Amino acid sequence: MTEPTAARRVDAESLREAWPVLDADERAEGFNLLDRAEAEEFFNELSARAQAQIVLRLGDPERRLWLRLLDPDDAADLLQQEEVPPEERPRLLALLDPTGRAEVSALLAYAEDDAGGLMSPRFARLRPDMTTDEAIGYLRRQARGNLETLYYIYVLDQHQRLLGVVSFRELFTAPPGSTVETVMERDLVSVPEDMDQEAVAKILADADLVAVPVVDGDGRMRGIVTADDIVDVVQEEATEDIQKLGGMQALDVPYLQTPFWSLIKKRAGWLAVLFVGEMFTTNAMALYEDSLARAVVLTLFIPLIISSGGNSGSQAATLVIRAMALGQVKLRDWWRIIRREAASGITLGLILASLGIARVLVGAHLFEDFGAHSMPLGLTVGVSLIGVVLWGTIIGSMLPFIATWLGFDPASASAPFVATLVDVVGLAIYFTTAELILSGTLL
Amino acid sequence: MTEPTAARRVDAESLREAWPVLDADERAEGFNLLDRAEAEEFFNELSARAQAQIVLRLGDPERRLWLRLLDPDDAADLLQQEEVPPEERPRLLALLDPTGRAEVSALLAYAEDDAGGLMSPRFARLRPDMTTDEAIGYLRRQARGNLETLYYIYVLDQHQRLLGVVSFRELFTAPPGSTVETVMERDLVSVPEDMDQEAVAKILADADLVAVPVVDGDGRMRGIVTADDIVDVVQEEATEDIQKLGGMQALDVPYLQTPFWSLIKKRAGWLAVLFVGEMFTTNAMALYEDSLARAVVLTLFIPLIISSGGNSGSQAATLVIRAMALGQVKLRDWWRIIRREAASGITLGLILASLGIARVLVGAHLFEDFGAHSMPLGLTVGVSLIGVVLWGTIIGSMLPFIATWLGFDPASASAPFVATLVDVVGLAIYFTTAELILSGTLL
Repeated sequence: MTEPTAARRVDAESLREAWPVLDADERAEGFNLLDRAEAEEFFNELSARAQAQIVLRLGDPERRLWLRLLDPDDAADLLQQEEVPPEERPRLLALLDPTGRAEVSALLAYAEDDAGGLMSPRFARLRPDMTTDEAIGYLRRQARGNLETLYYIYVLDQHQRLLGVVSFRELFTAPPGSTVETVMERDLVSVPEDMDQEAVAKILADADLVAVPVVDGDGRMRGIVTADDIVDVVQEEATEDIQKLGGMQALDVPYLQTPFWSLIKKRAGWLAVLFVGEMFTTNAMALYEDSLARAVVLTLFIPLIISSGGNSGSQAATLVIRAMALGQVKLRDWWRIIRREAASGITLGLILASLGIARVLVGAHLFEDFGAHSMPLGLTVGVSLIGVVLWGTIIGSMLPFIATWLGFDPASASAPFVATLVDVVGLAIYFTTAELILSGTLL
Repeated sequence: MTEPTAARRVDAESLREAWPVLDADERAEGFNLLDRAEAEEFFNELSARAQAQIVLRLGDPERRLWLRLLDPDDAADLLQQEEVPPEERPRLLALLDPTGRAEVSALLAYAEDDAGGLMSPRFARLRPDMTTDEAIGYLRRQARGNLETLYYIYVLDQHQRLLGVVSFRELFTAPPGSTVETVMERDLVSVPEDMDQEAVAKILADADLVAVPVVDGDGRMRGIVTADDIVDVVQEEATEDIQKLGGMQALDVPYLQTPFWSLIKKRAGWLAVLFVGEMFTTNAMALYEDSLARAVVLTLFIPLIISSGGNSGSQAATLVIRAMALGQVKLRDWWRIIRREAASGITLGLILASLGIARVLVGAHLFEDFGAHSMPLGLTVGVSLIGVVLWGTIIGSMLPFIATWLGFDPASASAPFVATLVDVVGLAIYFTTAELILSGTLL
C-alpha cells in the first residue's frame, strides 16, 4: 500500500499484462527477472499449469525453493499437470521436505476433481478433553508449523475421528476451566473424500462456510477444502458447461492461451458431428422435392420455421442443464419438466404463429407476394410453427435427461445439437402440414 | 454427526426435499413446524429471497428473532428483496438492535452487486502499536461481540485507514514484546466499495484469499467480503450468462420456482426478436426465387449450409463471451481475436467443405441424386460452406465486442442471435456462389 511497493510492482504488473501472449519459455524468462518478494507473490497467483511450466524450466535449487513454497494441495495440483512428464514427478517430489513429500504423495492418490484432490491435509486440531486455555496455548505452539488455515479448529478423538468444530471466538469467550468438548459444535457439515467437487461447492455455498472438513469412510478426518479453492472450481465448471453449450469440447486452458490446432480440434469434432446430423435435412427435403418443385414459395419459409424450433429448443435445454448443474432439477423431475415445457412450447408456438401469419398476410397485401393462396399459406406457416416450437421445447428439455441417462454430461445437449435434431423433424412437420392444408390449391 | 441428530433431522430433510414445489405460504408453514435448533440451521441456509418470504409471514416477535439471527450483510440482502414492500422496510429495520440497525442501514446504501453490497461491516481490528500479547488479549474481549469472521485481523490507524493485516498464526508465533506493526503484512489486497462483484470474485480467486477488505475513497476500511458469499456470486453470474447465451432473459429465481407466465415473458421476448430477424431470410430467398424455381435441388442444401454458419458462430461467440467474463479477453484484444477467428473459420470451413463435397458426390454415385451436375453442385456447396463458416466465426467472435461497445452485456450475443444474423447473409453467400458457378449449367 506504500509508495515504494507501488514502484517495485511495475515489473510484476507488466509481466501480468503480457502474460497471455507469452509462450512458456518467455514466461519462465520474465519470471526469473522479478525480484524475490514480487516473484513469490506472482508465483502464488499463477494457475497450477503455469506454475508447472515455470518449475520445469528451472534448475534443482530453484525448483526446491518454489515447490516448498507451495501448500501441499497446490504442490499436488502442480505435479498432476499434463505438462509434467511422468518420469519428472518422483524427481520433483524428492525435492520436498519429508513431511511435505508424505502429504503430497497422499494427495496424489485422489482424483483431481474429488474433495480428496482439492483438500489440504494441514488443519488445526484439538482433543475434546483439553481445557479452552490449554487449547489456546496448544494452538499457539501448533501455529508455528504449517497450518494452511486457522479459520476453524477441528476436534478429533484418538482415532482421528471428527467429533466437532470450534472457532477461535468460542475458545476465547468460553468461561475459564471449560473443556473443548463443552464449547464445540457437534452438528457440523462434512464431506466424504470421493465427493465430486461440484457437490462440495454446493454444500459450502449453502452452508455459508469458508472451509469444510473431508472425512474417509470410517469418519476419520483427512483434510479441509477452503472456499477460495471452491471459487476456482465453480468458475472452471461454469466455463466447461458454457463451452459445451456453445457446441464444442471444453478447453483445458484459457482461450487466448490455447494453441491454434488444439482449438481447431476441440471445435471441428462437434462441428463435423452436427454437419453429418444436419445432412439428414437434405434427405428429408428430397422426400418432398415434388411439392417443392410445384410450390417454390414453400421454400421461402424453411429457415424461419426450422430456426424457431432450434431457438425454443436452445432455451429449454439451457434452462434444464443449468438447473441440473445447480442441483435444482434431479433426474426424477423429468415428468414435471416435460409437462411444463409442453405448456411453454404451445404458448410460445402460438405467439410465433401469430407473428408468422401476420407476416404472410402483410406480405400478401402490401407486395402481392403469395398470389391467391396467402390464407392457406399463412395457416400452413402458423400450424407448422406451433408444431415445431412444441417439438423444440420438448426435445430441448429432455435431451439433457437423455444425455445423463446415457452417461454423458447433460451440457453436451448444446444449443447447436438441439437445433440439429429439431431441424430434420421440423422440416417433416412443415411439409406434412403443407401437404394437408395446401393439397388441391398450391399443391 | 450423532444418532439423535440424524433422527431429528428427518423433518428438515423432508422440508428441503419438498421446498422447490412449495409456494411461499406452504414454505412458511413448513418452516414453523421445525424445532428451534433445526429451524435456525435451515433459515441460515435459505436464499435471501426465501428468508424474506418467511419473515413477511411471521408476527413481530418471531420477525425480531429471525432478523437478529442474521449477519448484517445477510439482513441487508433480505431487506433488498423484491418481495419486501418498500413500506415494510423501516418496520423490519426497527426490529433490529441499535447497532445492527445502524450497520444494516449503512449497507442498504450500496448497490446489491457491488463490493459494498456484499460486505460485512463486522471484522476484527487492531491498532499498529499494540504488542502481540495485548492484541491477543484484546481480540479475546472483542470476540465476545459479533464479529462475522476472525479469519484475518486488520490493522487500522486512528482514522480507520487500513495499514495491514495479521493472521492469528503471525500473532501467536511473534517473539514476545513485538508490536503488531512489526508482524503485520503491509502489502495486502483490498477492493474499493463500488467495485463490481464479478471483479471482486476474480481478485479473491486469484489471490487465494478467504476474505478481502473493502476500503472507501480515502483508504478507510468499511468491511470485508468473504469467499463463501463469492461462491454464490460466481454461481449466479454464471447462471445469468448461461441463460442469456441460451437466447433468453436471465431468470431471477430458480427454473422450477419461476412462475409459468414469468418464464414465458423471459423467453417470448427474445424468441420474437429472433423470429423477426429471421423473417429477413424469407426476403433474402425471395430475391433468388427464379434460381430456386429453375434448380429445386439447390433448396435441399439450405438448412445444411446455414446451420453450419450458425454452429461455428455459436462456438466463436461462446468462447469470446466466457473469456471476457473471466477477464482473459479485453476490449482492446478485438483485432487479435478477429485474426485468430478468421484463421479458424477458414480451417473449419475447409473441413466442412470436404464433408459437403463428399456428400454430394457420394449421393450422385450411389443414388444418382443430382443428375449430370453433381460436380458443379458439389463445388457450389463446398465454396459456400467456406464462406458461411468464415462469416459465422467472424460475426460470432465480434458480436460480443459490439454488444459491449453498445453498452449491452456481451452474453446477449447468444447462439440463437448469432445464428439468426448468420442465416440471412449465409443464404446470400450460397445463392451468389450458386449463380456464379452454376450459370449456364443448372441455372
